[in-house]
Amino acid sequence: MSLLENNSVVYKEVPVGLPTEENLEIVTSKVSSSAPEGGLLIQVLYVSLDPYLRGRMRDPSIKSYTPAFSTNEILYNFGVGRVIDSSAPEFAKGDIVKSSITQFTMYQAVPNEGLKFFNKVENPNRFPLTYYLGVLGMPGLTAYYSFYKIGEPKKGETILISAASGAVGQLVGRLAKHEGLRVVGSVGSDEKVKYLKDELKFDEVWNYKEISPVEAIAKHIPEGIDIYFDNVGGELLAAALVGMNNYGRIIACGQISQYNIPNPEDRYGIKNTMLIVTKRLKVQGFIILDIYDKDAETVTEFEEAVSKLLKDGGFIYKEDVIDGIENTLDGFIALLTGKNFGKVSVKVST
Amino acid sequence: MSLLENNSVVYKEVPVGLPTEENLEIVTSKVSSSAPEGGLLIQVLYVSLDPYLRGRMRDPSIKSYTPAFSTNEILYNFGVGRVIDSSAPEFAKGDIVKSSITQFTMYQAVPNEGLKFFNKVENPNRFPLTYYLGVLGMPGLTAYYSFYKIGEPKKGETILISAASGAVGQLVGRLAKHEGLRVVGSVGSDEKVKYLKDELKFDEVWNYKEISPVEAIAKHIPEGIDIYFDNVGGELLAAALVGMNNYGRIIACGQISQYNIPNPEDRYGIKNTMLIVTKRLKVQGFIILDIYDKDAETVTEFEEAVSKLLKDGGFIYKEDVIDGIENTLDGFIALLTGKNFGKVSVKVST
Repeated sequence: MSLLENNSVVYKEVPVGLPTEENLEIVTSKVSSSAPEGGLLIQVLYVSLDPYLRGRMRDPSIKSYTPAFSTNEILYNFGVGRVIDSSAPEFAKGDIVKSSITQFTMYQAVPNEGLKFFNKVENPNRFPLTYYLGVLGMPGLTAYYSFYKIGEPKKGETILISAASGAVGQLVGRLAKHEGLRVVGSVGSDEKVKYLKDELKFDEVWNYKEISPVEAIAKHIPEGIDIYFDNVGGELLAAALVGMNNYGRIIACGQISQYNIPNPEDRYGIKNTMLIVTKRLKVQGFIILDIYDKDAETVTEFEEAVSKLLKDGGFIYKEDVIDGIENTLDGFIALLTGKNFGKVSVKVST
Repeated sequence: MSLLENNSVVYKEVPVGLPTEENLEIVTSKVSSSAPEGGLLIQVLYVSLDPYLRGRMRDPSIKSYTPAFSTNEILYNFGVGRVIDSSAPEFAKGDIVKSSITQFTMYQAVPNEGLKFFNKVENPNRFPLTYYLGVLGMPGLTAYYSFYKIGEPKKGETILISAASGAVGQLVGRLAKHEGLRVVGSVGSDEKVKYLKDELKFDEVWNYKEISPVEAIAKHIPEGIDIYFDNVGGELLAAALVGMNNYGRIIACGQISQYNIPNPEDRYGIKNTMLIVTKRLKVQGFIILDIYDKDAETVTEFEEAVSKLLKDGGFIYKEDVIDGIENTLDGFIALLTGKNFGKVSVKVST
């Protein structure tokens, strides 16, 4: 047994507003090069960065749908890694594994009782491994489940997608095109506008930094919105209510525009919720973690359907890979402020 | 043929805020004592007063789910009347009829082409005729349809009802008790609190003028809200979001607290819509007028079920009958400001 030098991202304290180096600190330590008894030693390859992690960095006395992170623990999320030592019969050295508790660290020792969170990745289609954190992972299921089950899409309808170039938004857009909807997106840069129109074949896309949501909707969606896929909340949600058609559906997926406003009183106040009544709208929230337990059938259907679309070609998925664990904080801030482009992961090793 | 003196409520101009005598004027005219060719002459008995009428008193250029009233026309709504002269074979003198276009007038001449809006009231159970405007009419169907179809009630759950002594709220409460839910209400006077607790057997009721919604919910619904029946919008809707349990349903029926705020910018801003996501809530609006066409089965089911409950006794329905057409405006203002108590109708004749 020897010792390996290990860098990790440690969660130090609850951020106020955007996280800083005070909140997420790089810590160097040593780890044994052998797997724990009955467990694994994993070289972490990629860890996913997702907006919901900000919600877990909160005062633990505030209840929410995911547990708060504990301070002084290594930050963790969905990730993929390679087994470099195994003392568990189900796994062999060299196996690629994925888990929901992959640490932002170079080497992760997994004790026997942690094995239940790890699954082998077979990858017969030789997709990039990051796909298992994005289009084939939790963000992919988020898009797939909510688009079909809450959105109830019908051919010829119009969908508006906010944060449309993100991990979830871009897949919603592709699925909606696949189903014959008119697809409109809101993004935060001209580069993203061009990409979504040229590569992902969105019908219309605007840069929300250059036009107000009310103007953008009036200009680009004169026929009205049938489904609004809401990743951002705030001003765009209020404007979407104005633009919705009767019997429209709002998929309430997240409100990234509001996550870093420390004082709840400073959040955007929606004054036109009466339109939910007069337009007979359905606004439905969901948490994708529920679905893994509750609706395993849809999870399988999703994996098969999206793998097939990706394999057949013509179905691409934009990713934004942060190189090196030491850049985790900068990558997370970019994600929270819309500066990323595509599904974000941190590459720890190759 | 002679002429009858007729008083009517005429809609003169769009109100700003609460309506006044400038907007709704009593006008005296003459009407023929004979039915028009192929039509009816009706003595109006009762006309319903409902909050949604305020929404129809708007600038006609603003689209909504019901057409705007035209100025200089006699105000109309659901009502019941007695045929005093008939030139239509389907109706005889003495028949009791109901319609959605009953005028706020003493005598209404119905031309042949208007007959399709009139139906005979058989009333085998000898209910008060006002019941056909309330518990057995549109407000009753509003309560019944939305409670069952949107609320998806389950025995043992808790429902919060705002405007709980109103035309819709009180029936929702009785149906919810009937289905074994814990029933909590918010009302605007101590008299209403007492009535709902003592007569309608609500489990808890508070006077919203004496306690803030956040405090009231914390005190009276520590177990959390499973269904919120929203008639008022505004501050109580925001507080209900805080008090909702995971997977809760919000029946978006109306927002009476916001109807008379002329400037949309002055309406209450809901800042915690993120709770729709984290609590996996469904917020669903509806317009009951749709249901008559779309779901005739539920309409029949409603009429039979509620008639049976009323006939078997123990199921009472509180009404507030305004005596005399000249008191229509005062009654409407009382309704819009929560000063009424129970389902409001105007008694025109007996």
